Amino acid sequence: MASSEDALRRSLAEKQSAVEAQGQLVRDLKAAEKAKDEVDQAVKLLNDLKLEKAEVEKELQAVVTSNGGVTGPAISRDAFRQAVVNTLERKLFYIPSFKIYGGVAGLYDYGPPGCAVKSNVLAFWRQHFVLEENMLEVDCPCVTPEVVLKASGHVDKFTDLMVKDEKTGTCYRADHLLKDFCKDKLEKDLTIASEKVEELKHILAVLDDLSAEELGSKIKEYGIVAPDTKNPLSDPYPFNLMFQTSIGPSGLSPGYMRPETAQGIFVNFKDLYYYNGYKLPFGAAQIGQAFRNEISPRQGLLRVREFTLAEIEHFVDPEDKSHPKFKEVENLDFFMFPRDDQVSGKAAKKMNIGEAVSQGIVNNETLGYFIGRVYLFLTSLGIDKERLRFRQHLANEMAHYACDCWDAEIECSYGWIECVGIADRSAYDLRAHTDKSGVDLVAHEKFAEPKEVEKLVIAPVKKELGLAFKGTQKNVVEALEAMTETEALEMKANLETKGEVDFYVCTLEKNVTIKKNMVTISKQKKKEHQRVFTPSVIEPSFGIGRIIYCLFEHSFYMRPSKAGDEQLNVFRFPSVVAPIKCTVFPLVQNQQYEEVARGIHKNLTAAGISCKIDTTGTSIGKRYARTDELGVPLAITVDKTDSVTIRERDSKAQIRVDVTEVASVVKEVTDGQSTWADVQWRYPTHHSGAAEE
Amino acid sequence: MASSEDALRRSLAEKQSAVEAQGQLVRDLKAAEKAKDEVDQAVKLLNDLKLEKAEVEKELQAVVTSNGGVTGPAISRDAFRQAVVNTLERKLFYIPSFKIYGGVAGLYDYGPPGCAVKSNVLAFWRQHFVLEENMLEVDCPCVTPEVVLKASGHVDKFTDLMVKDEKTGTCYRADHLLKDFCKDKLEKDLTIASEKVEELKHILAVLDDLSAEELGSKIKEYGIVAPDTKNPLSDPYPFNLMFQTSIGPSGLSPGYMRPETAQGIFVNFKDLYYYNGYKLPFGAAQIGQAFRNEISPRQGLLRVREFTLAEIEHFVDPEDKSHPKFKEVENLDFFMFPRDDQVSGKAAKKMNIGEAVSQGIVNNETLGYFIGRVYLFLTSLGIDKERLRFRQHLANEMAHYACDCWDAEIECSYGWIECVGIADRSAYDLRAHTDKSGVDLVAHEKFAEPKEVEKLVIAPVKKELGLAFKGTQKNVVEALEAMTETEALEMKANLETKGEVDFYVCTLEKNVTIKKNMVTISKQKKKEHQRVFTPSVIEPSFGIGRIIYCLFEHSFYMRPSKAGDEQLNVFRFPSVVAPIKCTVFPLVQNQQYEEVARGIHKNLTAAGISCKIDTTGTSIGKRYARTDELGVPLAITVDKTDSVTIRERDSKAQIRVDVTEVASVVKEVTDGQSTWADVQWRYPTHHSGAAEE
Repeated sequence: MASSEDALRRSLAEKQSAVEAQGQLVRDLKAAEKAKDEVDQAVKLLNDLKLEKAEVEKELQAVVTSNGGVTGPAISRDAFRQAVVNTLERKLFYIPSFKIYGGVAGLYDYGPPGCAVKSNVLAFWRQHFVLEENMLEVDCPCVTPEVVLKASGHVDKFTDLMVKDEKTGTCYRADHLLKDFCKDKLEKDLTIASEKVEELKHILAVLDDLSAEELGSKIKEYGIVAPDTKNPLSDPYPFNLMFQTSIGPSGLSPGYMRPETAQGIFVNFKDLYYYNGYKLPFGAAQIGQAFRNEISPRQGLLRVREFTLAEIEHFVDPEDKSHPKFKEVENLDFFMFPRDDQVSGKAAKKMNIGEAVSQGIVNNETLGYFIGRVYLFLTSLGIDKERLRFRQHLANEMAHYACDCWDAEIECSYGWIECVGIADRSAYDLRAHTDKSGVDLVAHEKFAEPKEVEKLVIAPVKKELGLAFKGTQKNVVEALEAMTETEALEMKANLETKGEVDFYVCTLEKNVTIKKNMVTISKQKKKEHQRVFTPSVIEPSFGIGRIIYCLFEHSFYMRPSKAGDEQLNVFRFPSVVAPIKCTVFPLVQNQQYEEVARGIHKNLTAAGISCKIDTTGTSIGKRYARTDELGVPLAITVDKTDSVTIRERDSKAQIRVDVTEVASVVKEVTDGQSTWADVQWRYPTHHSGAAEE
Repeated sequence: MASSEDALRRSLAEKQSAVEAQGQLVRDLKAAEKAKDEVDQAVKLLNDLKLEKAEVEKELQAVVTSNGGVTGPAISRDAFRQAVVNTLERKLFYIPSFKIYGGVAGLYDYGPPGCAVKSNVLAFWRQHFVLEENMLEVDCPCVTPEVVLKASGHVDKFTDLMVKDEKTGTCYRADHLLKDFCKDKLEKDLTIASEKVEELKHILAVLDDLSAEELGSKIKEYGIVAPDTKNPLSDPYPFNLMFQTSIGPSGLSPGYMRPETAQGIFVNFKDLYYYNGYKLPFGAAQIGQAFRNEISPRQGLLRVREFTLAEIEHFVDPEDKSHPKFKEVENLDFFMFPRDDQVSGKAAKKMNIGEAVSQGIVNNETLGYFIGRVYLFLTSLGIDKERLRFRQHLANEMAHYACDCWDAEIECSYGWIECVGIADRSAYDLRAHTDKSGVDLVAHEKFAEPKEVEKLVIAPVKKELGLAFKGTQKNVVEALEAMTETEALEMKANLETKGEVDFYVCTLEKNVTIKKNMVTISKQKKKEHQRVFTPSVIEPSFGIGRIIYCLFEHSFYMRPSKAGDEQLNVFRFPSVVAPIKCTVFPLVQNQQYEEVARGIHKNLTAAGISCKIDTTGTSIGKRYARTDELGVPLAITVDKTDSVTIRERDSKAQIRVDVTEVASVVKEVTDGQSTWADVQWRYPTHHSGAAEE
């Protein structure tokens, strides 16, 4: 795609030069009052060249607005999104929060069908991950004291760079402004030089890595101003994205609304390890709200200020990241986008996860296992596997402590969206909380028999140190004991050769002189009965709202009504996701049929199947259309008192089933024990009349 | 109970007088150097009187510390609670949040079994209320802009009265200090005069209604000081209990973490009414986190700073609060505690909900229906129906706008705890948001045929008003149009008699003179096609954490081990609540048995049944004890390769079932399709060996 764009830009530049040259020629011929024939011929050539140029321009326009791989040009993407969003809002899948007060950017409510989809997705997540892997699920508060988020790094580093309109004070995300500028330039100005194109594209590629200074200088260089007022902008500065609050009445205990659920699991590691019988590996999980005080939220449900996360922290021995169930996923093939392919400009490609692990493209089996499980989870929900890829983080994208990280990205009308992050975070989080809290968050491996190990022993001679340093003796002793192996061995060597050394004690902020008699440094053989280590953490983290939005787009389609006079909207949700599993309609308003319908509705409800009865006199076709717009898989029409029809949403095929059997047939299909094809084969087909479809 | 306490206090005072009188007599006899016999006899009588007094004192002590009806004296209540809480904490049902950092008062995590219980309770709530009543469930954010909570009254009135230690600044809830003082005095000082007893008891009864001034003067009068330092206390002043934050980067949009989920439903009324096809009544529901920045949290899980609420807002025509399904609950009998019985000092009594509604004790059928449904919900979870009562709010307890309000109170070791509030909130909330937002939150009733109604019409004569008031004409017009019917009719009468009237225009903050020619006020007959009204709201609101804590206490019991050498803990959770439905143990460590166990475990997991496998070599008795402590209803022991035993937790009875059938038997029982008795009858009984039980 990129190379075709380059070729087109080059071609456009050539055509432009040719047009200009020919235009000059025409002007020259006219000035020289050449023969009409000669002039006409030159003009004809000029017009042909202009047409050719227009052709190339059109082609290039289509390419640059297609957003690198999303099907169709921008115009149809936007129209598609508008159709989905209209249906979603009209049917109350979601609602801008506090709408009657004008709403709040980045806050959305899930209305009845959206709320049902969300709770179905979460229930399936619990079944697919927590229950299947015997994970330890916990439920921690959102309000979090500062110390926890200091340790995790969020207080210092969970920031976005912000610029302010210098006159009105309106705030913008600095990278958004630069991104918009570059994209706009690339899409709308087709004549820019190819070096400029390269430069702008490079900026888009490295946008996430730009420092405040770099962003600021680019904003200055390009003359970017506040979008609404055209006022000048401040230099970029970091804004912490956590919602801050205060715990208790004193005002002295700052707290934050958690930016992720993971920290609640890390601080409980010790208890969870005990609960798991002191065995590794084990997974802990949490579903809950997380908060991010976005500077200027956009992209609807994709970037919001409050969202539901479902996170897994799988604790594993850093020396053994194999996974006993890896075999169950190793034959899966799906789109992967390894780091090297991204750097060398290749596209994502279908790969086998087993091979990706064995070739070392994915760092370890456990990471690979979760990638496979995430693939199965998303595709079971109805995410299109052709628009799902696992993209490896580039070296500069990853946190410095991470071993490897893959994002499940789903393509929707906004482009490729990160919906699940699957990271090997090594021992970073547990170490950070160990350091800050002083509580050892470690695991033990008991040896079958004791092992002999050589260990460095630093033994300060307290008597001599006391004589030499008196009141500061303690600081010196602690500094000596805190030496690394290398430092200690260097001191030992120096003491042996020189008899004394200068030694910096950081708690005293000065050098002291250590003499040979003040410390013994030796290597000793010791018997050890166990290995003590900080477990590594593999973290699959799911943005539930983003997954649901992509699912809405992937499930949505339009089809003509039977009369062909309008386009009807359908969500092809699988049963596991569908907000309502079944609707029940009496064909006509008639007491007998209504009684049958109510009886069926009651049986379905008692069986735990979410269903809806519609006894309005609306035409059956309209009622089917309404239920298709909610993605209801099955519709029961009561057209007799002893048997009814069941219609499947996508095929519109109908079968006839006895009233006594209907609830169990619906349960079978919606629970996933049977497919529609199975039951279709068992029951007679019903051919609908003209009014139904 | 109260009367027995009075009698004992009187009796104690008599004994005390008798002891004093007899003591005086002994002293007199000795002083008079009376015969030894006579003195000895008097001393003996004195000692007898002292013993009698001690007896009464002991009895009284037991009564005053038994907290009005909770079984047993305080000491055994505390011991019971300690036993429950120890088990809950050891098994990680819950954990003080951020424990490794010393914790935060009022914040708790649910560990694995607690989290499972919670999600089971919520799933059952959804089935019992949302699905059963076809409620519209929504999911709104916790972050809420100030305007919404201004309208609801929370910004101004969601406060507790606080006092500060004048030297250290430590904050206390004023009512807690006064309550502790009164209770302490009543429990520990048995000699106080009966008028004083009455006074202290009265304070405890009206504690919630005391104003800041009243609380402050009582604190002064009783000389109450800061509990930790004995420093003097400040006057009480209101502290707003909402966690405050700021939305967006500007710092100009204050927001709060919602104190309840209800407001999210109210602001969406218009959309939900549309979604329901413009039909009343309908229920909307929401499950989610709510926040309350308690001044000094206590009582463990019962008073916390963040908690899960499940709320229903049932919108109903204020002129018709009947309920079509009331028949389904009207025969239920349970403990009710109507207002009159509380005032006249009677106890709660078993009543029939149908009668309570027909006698007008409960205001209306819809309220009565929900009381019945709440009763069924709580008892299905395992709440003891003998320790559950519905207490009607006293007139002074209710919000001024509420029609009627009943709390489901559950008795636990802390006394009677309000766990569900069921209130008829009339039209208050929808009106408040209509006023603040300017969006009409109303419903319409279309008349079958137009009705003729007499309506007051206020028609300001703009020309005359313009001449008279020029620039302020608009304010006067609006004020005229805003008159109530009474005000307008009074003006009409005055204008007719006097020709002009003084009229206060609040937006001008002054009186103006209105003349007869400036306004026409008349009653006109109009045809109306519909009635427009603000629906009433019936709100059942569930404190999920409180229900769960009470459930833990009601489900807990201890029984001796088979050897009789220790007490074992058991939670008798019903299947619907149990965190794990079934455990699987190989009887001995043996590869064949383990394979069978793993196969069963896999089948159960695939069937969506939460189960746990334990292949440790621990004795089978110990493994049963472990699983009883988690409240697991069924345990499968693999002691053969073709059949296994299933053991029921409470009866410890065992049956033998084929390996091929075991998953379906467990599913049947845990899904509630069959009872244990049903399957016990179908399969042979297994008699356990000595080691098992």
